[in-house]
Amino acid sequence: MKKNITIRDVAKEAELSIATVSRYLNGKGYVSQKAEIKIRDVMNRLDFKPNEIARSLSNKKTNTIALIIPDILNPFFPELVVAIEGVAKERGYSLVLINTQEEFLHSSGFWRSLESRYIDGLILASFQFTEEVQKGMENIKLPFVTIDRAAGENNNNSIGIDNYKGAKMAVEHLIEVGCKNIVHISGPKTYPSSSDRLLGYIDAMKERFPDQKAFFYEGNFSLESGYDLTKQLIIENKGYDGIFLANDFMAIGAIKALKEMKVNVPEEMAIIGFDGIKLTEMVDPEISTIKQPIYALGAKATTRLINIIEKKENQNLYSKLEVRLMKKESTLGFKKNKGESTFD
Amino acid sequence: MKKNITIRDVAKEAELSIATVSRYLNGKGYVSQKAEIKIRDVMNRLDFKPNEIARSLSNKKTNTIALIIPDILNPFFPELVVAIEGVAKERGYSLVLINTQEEFLHSSGFWRSLESRYIDGLILASFQFTEEVQKGMENIKLPFVTIDRAAGENNNNSIGIDNYKGAKMAVEHLIEVGCKNIVHISGPKTYPSSSDRLLGYIDAMKERFPDQKAFFYEGNFSLESGYDLTKQLIIENKGYDGIFLANDFMAIGAIKALKEMKVNVPEEMAIIGFDGIKLTEMVDPEISTIKQPIYALGAKATTRLINIIEKKENQNLYSKLEVRLMKKESTLGFKKNKGESTFD
Repeated sequence: MKKNITIRDVAKEAELSIATVSRYLNGKGYVSQKAEIKIRDVMNRLDFKPNEIARSLSNKKTNTIALIIPDILNPFFPELVVAIEGVAKERGYSLVLINTQEEFLHSSGFWRSLESRYIDGLILASFQFTEEVQKGMENIKLPFVTIDRAAGENNNNSIGIDNYKGAKMAVEHLIEVGCKNIVHISGPKTYPSSSDRLLGYIDAMKERFPDQKAFFYEGNFSLESGYDLTKQLIIENKGYDGIFLANDFMAIGAIKALKEMKVNVPEEMAIIGFDGIKLTEMVDPEISTIKQPIYALGAKATTRLINIIEKKENQNLYSKLEVRLMKKESTLGFKKNKGESTFD
Repeated sequence: MKKNITIRDVAKEAELSIATVSRYLNGKGYVSQKAEIKIRDVMNRLDFKPNEIARSLSNKKTNTIALIIPDILNPFFPELVVAIEGVAKERGYSLVLINTQEEFLHSSGFWRSLESRYIDGLILASFQFTEEVQKGMENIKLPFVTIDRAAGENNNNSIGIDNYKGAKMAVEHLIEVGCKNIVHISGPKTYPSSSDRLLGYIDAMKERFPDQKAFFYEGNFSLESGYDLTKQLIIENKGYDGIFLANDFMAIGAIKALKEMKVNVPEEMAIIGFDGIKLTEMVDPEISTIKQPIYALGAKATTRLINIIEKKENQNLYSKLEVRLMKKESTLGFKKNKGESTFD
């Protein structure tokens, strides 16, 4: 934002009274055409926008925070919203949500629109923390915290999980139940959360199957991409017996695809996801997953943001929360490579 | 909102210059304690809030609309969000979301906070359209459209579906597949959408089983209430062989409960929901449902709202969209009362 230009600066520069400028801005009362032209000219020259004065007038707190999420259809984010909302309410704040695609974060218009939204701070739950995003956030000069896909050790103020470790746990569990040919369906490689999970998969494979090539398909975290890529890998017929999907939403799509392709889950194909959303317990079979502490993630981010807003805490912290392996039927029921005589 | 009180009115009443009041409001520059007390006193007396001047200053369009939803965890609402967002974007608007519980809509603070949110209009997808809500919406003087749970023929500008007809279709379908003892799990009776679905159930039962008592449990549209009430009705052991649930989210909970209680769906118990959310196809068995045109509902509401904002359309319309029966495994596989010899 520009240095704080006020209505007084405009009046001074235009050699008019504040009352005249105020009348012009309010659109009420008489302003001569000559004065109007002058004011417009000065406003342009000083790059003064009425919103800025509005903003400075209500420089007071609004007790509202905003949360930016990338995919409201993925139940992970609604679950996160509930956590954030809960803590915000306790602290006397309300929450507005913005669901947006990555590309919009790269336009300065997006950040400008946030500026006039009257919020005290924001949580970014999504996207790469690119230079454009960083610049956008710095420009609006609002306290912020990044979580999940936007989290990273290089970020200013960030709360994430150990994606690498979680991915290793997932692959090791597939190996433990007897899978010998494990494939990975990743998220977009450009997200740190995806690339860390991919790396965890590759490293776990290297350690246990040094002679075997790790192989993965790049998805986009949507249910459809889990569904489509699973169909593709079955058609390519490379003899996979276990799939580690980079999130649960894709795993739900995978289960659906395998059902349609008449591949038995978990007997012939073990499935494990990542996130720990509630829906993994609603499908059949229930899906094994690496459970993120979704509630803690949202709660911690909100507490930190509000502490920063209220100047009770300093920025520049990176917190990493623990993940947990949830063993369910989608892997525990795997039978292909153990006791083949009883199964085939 | 009050008559438009401006900074000039405050200055005049306080017998101070506009510059002084402006300095006070900006929190910049010197204002004597005496002047400060005077200003505060006048502001209180005139009920002048800085936000009001801010608002009048930026009386321009913000090209933002707000959507208020009651339960972000119910996938129906995220699906609706996607539709609304899509149309809004096409028309050059961005969307902010507010997920809130019913009770908050009854406080004037909620509506006041919306007022300072800089939006051009709003869509209310939730809740009873009570007197408090109506008053709140009238006070903020913003164009609005109501849909789904908030929709009703008595509302000003509303887009809904034929809940009564949909419910009758659901029950008739259960009868058609052979169910003889059908129970209903409703939503909160105070919502028109719930009470209309309940009425459809009762009337369909009366027509087909005039001697049998219609029976229902009152849920709250959440997955948990579908789960809990289904367990309860199995424990009460009244010999039900079909459940019509007032929404799909509860139906997903019901399927889960029946699995745990070792009741076979659909062989022993047919299940039908309402809404047509994508997840009904992801669970096993896939759930029969009354499909609302979710996309059309959101798209139509958004188009109408933006037309009203842009003064291309008048208010005071009520549209009723058609619903469709989707027959899936959760009812089609029902076997209990037909061909008992082959099944038992």
